[in-house]
Parts: sequence; structure tokens; C-alpha cells
Amino acid sequence: MRQILLSKQAIIAFTLCAVGTLLAAAGDDGLKAPNGFKDWYFANSMLLTTDQNKFGLNAGNHLIYINAKGLERFKRGDASPYPDGTVFVDDVRSYTTDGGAYLDAGRKFLTTMVKDSKKYASTGGWGFQAWVGGDPSKPVVMDAAKQCFACHTSQKAHDFAFSTYVD
Amino acid sequence: MRQILLSKQAIIAFTLCAVGTLLAAAGDDGLKAPNGFKDWYFANSMLLTTDQNKFGLNAGNHLIYINAKGLERFKRGDASPYPDGTVFVDDVRSYTTDGGAYLDAGRKFLTTMVKDSKKYASTGGWGFQAWVGGDPSKPVVMDAAKQCFACHTSQKAHDFAFSTYVD
Repeated sequence: MRQILLSKQAIIAFTLCAVGTLLAAAGDDGLKAPNGFKDWYFANSMLLTTDQNKFGLNAGNHLIYINAKGLERFKRGDASPYPDGTVFVDDVRSYTTDGGAYLDAGRKFLTTMVKDSKKYASTGGWGFQAWVGGDPSKPVVMDAAKQCFACHTSQKAHDFAFSTYVD
Repeated sequence: MRQILLSKQAIIAFTLCAVGTLLAAAGDDGLKAPNGFKDWYFANSMLLTTDQNKFGLNAGNHLIYINAKGLERFKRGDASPYPDGTVFVDDVRSYTTDGGAYLDAGRKFLTTMVKDSKKYASTGGWGFQAWVGGDPSKPVVMDAAKQCFACHTSQKAHDFAFSTYVD
């Protein structure tokens, strides 16, 4: 069975959003807290144990899913754009520790990245949002360009997505 | 959105096997290294940073999948037995660390737990096997009763599976 080693750049799920502690009123980005993503394809994961990390992400176990629409492009891994309708979700989990074990302790944030090349043209064709605990009434992204896209621009060659297929 | 906190007992993926370093010749357990599990349902995960842990598991990021056959029972979470044909897979990933970040570094073991109530009657109806790096020529379980089932007996009330559904 083939084994692929990931570079740090490759594994960095996706930067999502430098989610602050400020809770914003729901913006007019048209994004909704996703349902059903647990039936999607599980792309990869990354555990961050401190908020002060080089990825600018909240601490937690980041579990990344992608929907069927974007899966072929994801697995292909080339430089082509993701099709409109592609959705990534990062199910950011809290954890407890028990010795050297990190155990799931529930949802901390639910974040999403939705491809609509026209609607979100100003942020690379992607809409970004995140919700505290996955609660639809608690979105945290007020300015996707600053909070999310500023980091994702580094991945322009990969249609602004950090996640990479790993076998 | 409902948030469920997991008990330690609940999240402990499944004990799988106390995989040693000894490589065994393939047994006659009829088990094969699973293919296609990445298209299955992603059940949960647990990171173990040291081999000396209370779960008796190898260090690594344990990513647990279940196939469609067992999914309804898994989500129901009651005391009923899993149907024959249920398969759990633990994709045990190596990791690298970068500050407080744990990043995927490829497959360490691929383990499986297959329900066949007649064939594996002596071990609770489950067959157990694990392969180094997912390599079909490198099975490590020589005695499933000792290496695997000895721990799984503690979960008799849950048909010997540790994994629990988490939303």
C-alpha cells in the first residue's frame, strides 16, 4: 500500500479563519452552518494544542471534510480550480488530555469554506464563515478578506485551499 | 446544534490490538488489509503521543472508520449486536510536531475489526488484525484473543466495540 508523507504545507488542513473571540452578528455572506458533513469525505486532520501557533488557528483537533462536489478535484490534487458548490468543513474539536492521550471533548467551532466563483469573487471565489460550537446564531467572521482570505492567498496555486489529499 | 461531551470511555476509539513490534506470518484468520475505507464513515479520532498509555495502544493519531453495514447500529448506540459484515478500521497515523501542532506524517498501522459471529465466535464474533504501514504482507496479530480481545472484553455491553458515536 502506498504511503505518502505530507509536507507541512500539505497537511495544514486549511487556514480557515483566524477566528477571534469576538462574536459577530450574522453577515450577509449567505453562508449557513453546514449539516450532514459527517457523511462527507474525511480529508485529513491536524491537532493544535495552543492558540499561539504558526497557522493562526484556534487550538483544537481540526477534522476536515469535503463534500462530493469537490472530491474529484481534491483527490486529483492538481492546480485546477475547485468547481462551484465545493464545500470544505473544519469540525474543530475541543480535547481533554489524559497522560499522552488527547481525547475528544466536543465541538468548539464549525467552520466552512464554500466555492462560488462569482458571489465570492473578491476572496478568490470562496466564502468563509465559522460558528462557535456550530451554533448557527454565533457566526464569528465579520470580514472574510481579513480574517480568512489573507492567509489563504498563500495557496493561490492550489485554488486557495490548504487541504491536500493524503493516502 | 447539539453538542455532546464524550466520556473517556466513550471516545476511546477501540482498543484494537496491543500491537507489538513482532511481525507475524499471516495467520489463517481470513482477514485482509482493507481497501476503500477512506470512503466510509469517519467515526472519531484519538491522538496518543506515547506508547506507554493506559489504552495499551501504539502512539499515533488513531482515525476510526466504520463501513455502511455497521453504521446504523453505530449511530443508534444501543446494546444490540453489530450485524455480521460490520468492519471498523483504525488508520493509525504517524505524526510530526511543530511547536504545539501535530501534523500527519503517513500511515503507521492499518488495523481492522470484522464482525462474523460464527467464524470468530471465540473472540466475541469479531476478527482482529493489523498491518504495519498497511502492508498486506506485514500482519502483526498472531493471537487475537490475547493481543486484542483481552481488552475488548471490557466492552461486552457494547458488543465489544469501544467506538461511540459523537456529534
